[in-house]
Amino acid sequence: MGKGITYPFGFYASGINCGIKKNGKEDLALIYSPYPCIAAGTFTTNQFKSYSVLWSIRNIQNEIRAILINSGNANACNGKENYELTEKLIEELSEKLKVEKNSILFASTGIIGENLPYEKIRNSFDRLIKKLSPEGNYEAAKGIITTDTFIKEYEINTGIKGRKKEVVIGGMAKGAGMINPCMATMLCFITTDAVIDRKSLEIALKNAVDESFNMITVDNDMSTNDTVICLANGQARNKTIHIDTPEFEIFSESLKNLCIVLAKKIASDGEGASKFIEVVVNGAWCKKDARRVAKRVAGSSLVKTAIAGENPNWGRILAAVGSTNARMDKNNIKVKVCGINVFKGGPENYDEENLKTLLKNKEIKIEIDLKKGNFSATSWGCDLTEEYVKINKEYS
Amino acid sequence: MGKGITYPFGFYASGINCGIKKNGKEDLALIYSPYPCIAAGTFTTNQFKSYSVLWSIRNIQNEIRAILINSGNANACNGKENYELTEKLIEELSEKLKVEKNSILFASTGIIGENLPYEKIRNSFDRLIKKLSPEGNYEAAKGIITTDTFIKEYEINTGIKGRKKEVVIGGMAKGAGMINPCMATMLCFITTDAVIDRKSLEIALKNAVDESFNMITVDNDMSTNDTVICLANGQARNKTIHIDTPEFEIFSESLKNLCIVLAKKIASDGEGASKFIEVVVNGAWCKKDARRVAKRVAGSSLVKTAIAGENPNWGRILAAVGSTNARMDKNNIKVKVCGINVFKGGPENYDEENLKTLLKNKEIKIEIDLKKGNFSATSWGCDLTEEYVKINKEYS
Repeated sequence: MGKGITYPFGFYASGINCGIKKNGKEDLALIYSPYPCIAAGTFTTNQFKSYSVLWSIRNIQNEIRAILINSGNANACNGKENYELTEKLIEELSEKLKVEKNSILFASTGIIGENLPYEKIRNSFDRLIKKLSPEGNYEAAKGIITTDTFIKEYEINTGIKGRKKEVVIGGMAKGAGMINPCMATMLCFITTDAVIDRKSLEIALKNAVDESFNMITVDNDMSTNDTVICLANGQARNKTIHIDTPEFEIFSESLKNLCIVLAKKIASDGEGASKFIEVVVNGAWCKKDARRVAKRVAGSSLVKTAIAGENPNWGRILAAVGSTNARMDKNNIKVKVCGINVFKGGPENYDEENLKTLLKNKEIKIEIDLKKGNFSATSWGCDLTEEYVKINKEYS
Repeated sequence: MGKGITYPFGFYASGINCGIKKNGKEDLALIYSPYPCIAAGTFTTNQFKSYSVLWSIRNIQNEIRAILINSGNANACNGKENYELTEKLIEELSEKLKVEKNSILFASTGIIGENLPYEKIRNSFDRLIKKLSPEGNYEAAKGIITTDTFIKEYEINTGIKGRKKEVVIGGMAKGAGMINPCMATMLCFITTDAVIDRKSLEIALKNAVDESFNMITVDNDMSTNDTVICLANGQARNKTIHIDTPEFEIFSESLKNLCIVLAKKIASDGEGASKFIEVVVNGAWCKKDARRVAKRVAGSSLVKTAIAGENPNWGRILAAVGSTNARMDKNNIKVKVCGINVFKGGPENYDEENLKTLLKNKEIKIEIDLKKGNFSATSWGCDLTEEYVKINKEYS
């Protein structure tokens, strides 16, 4: 088992059941740092943002000491009085933790339109705080999930030496897009002991999210609650990482790799998913074209059902590629499925039985060369199965 | 049974099996007019257009005498030699019909990436032409479908009097979006005996398609073959309809209504669909906002699965609305499901058991008032069921 968000020195975590989930599973998590942290965050662009998201957006620029997360209730579209409840809840937690209330961030995931379970959460604060520990990562990771079938944690060394220790990064996430009734949220919390200035952390996180969480697609819905937050407590005592120092590239690359690992875990745990799909686009005229094509193919219902059916139906891939306005050389475009050339300006002769056998694998790779330039992008997704529909039909 | 495309005077139609569909069902259709027609068309914007679509785009401005349609083969992404085959095929038909080859349009729907079944189609021309009749509409309508569960035909009177007869319009369509393996195509063929100038017919058709076929959504895939063609043979001998005459409005309205009826038939026949969904958006700041919100809600996988599950989960509707950038008054936005107010700036108190009962109906209406202006739009779709996935998993 990994160390996740408690891998960097000085982070404590805990997770408990406070009564929102009826099955007794963890539904409340806390991340705590005795050292003030700088924070960077990316949040849903949905116009109906959860009150938890609104609270975090308002406070992300402060010195941060803790993040509270609940699952089972989205705290969204539930009436304005819930913003006041949110504030009151955080205030009570701040008194117990003996920190400023503006130093606590908040994230929620679960059913939209129901009142924040204020009493249940508040009454559990003592228990939650008491369980805080440098080994609490796993319980915390359990506390943030909804329909996920496995816990998503990861940690990474950067190789950047500090006066006290090497800079490391840890993270935990919950699935999204693949989305249970209303539990339509992608959450990710990242901790690091790096010394880094706020602007550089923001840029590194934005780039990392663009190449990871923004490249996974399960259905095309967008949550009211999506949140990625990175806290840096500076305990490695490294030389401050600035955007113009070489360490910035190294730190950014490590952060991106951590986010990609977590994003791929999310994609492979799509609701009802039986297969993981990776779409690699090369030869694009610009980055935007590459990203657009990769996401369109990974997000196509027809491609996803074909993969579920282990169906060598590459025509659907081309139809998805062509439905974008990305520049491409139609007479030379190449498509590979599971490493087999199926199209090269026209249909290729290939061994269909062989491809059918390869499509039985759990990980399916689609490669597209647009033959129009030098840009690339990769997107990740999962197949679309009857099970996805079944899960999402049922009333929460 | 209706008269469909042979309702206007002077149009002949036929449909036969030429051997593409193995089950002996109709797979080839012909529409023929002894009188030269002006034509207007809207075609897929997919970059991988079928060779049939490319042929029709090239010839749509000519005087048109016939449209050939095959189902079971898309004539797309199958190699450049198929464009020459297409031309040769149309040339052979033109000799049999004794018309210019450039006066014949062509449409195809079916599997992508396979060679045009040139021999099968050509060898059936004599039979196809022999069956041409003013009562051939039903066989033709059967010849253009793939996974549709019912024939889609409609006809309408415009009330516009001509020297010979009243102007009428007829049409037939096949389903799309809801899409069988690779059979991802929406086709519609419309005939009218109106005298109308080309520019006016083009504008009327574009507006009609925007308010009908462009407002249905089943999955979010886009076909290589989508085609809507309208032929006008002038046999009503009415005063020429121009964009600045009052008759233009009347004709346009009739054409739009015909297209809406056919579009709704397509939406209600979505692959695996058990329910028809209508999304009405009012109070939008502009037409574009209204259309965007209506289509986003009707196209949301989570909304569609909720409807399939008869699940009063209005949070998903708000999440879909909020995921657009349409302007809205978030404190006053109203949402109705099956006529019941569920949200009005905040959750409404409503009788959930009553709503659950209403959700058992086959036609579900969702109404959204953005409270930001005076524009409206309506979109149509269907629910998302396990059956959709099952149909699309299977290899053709």
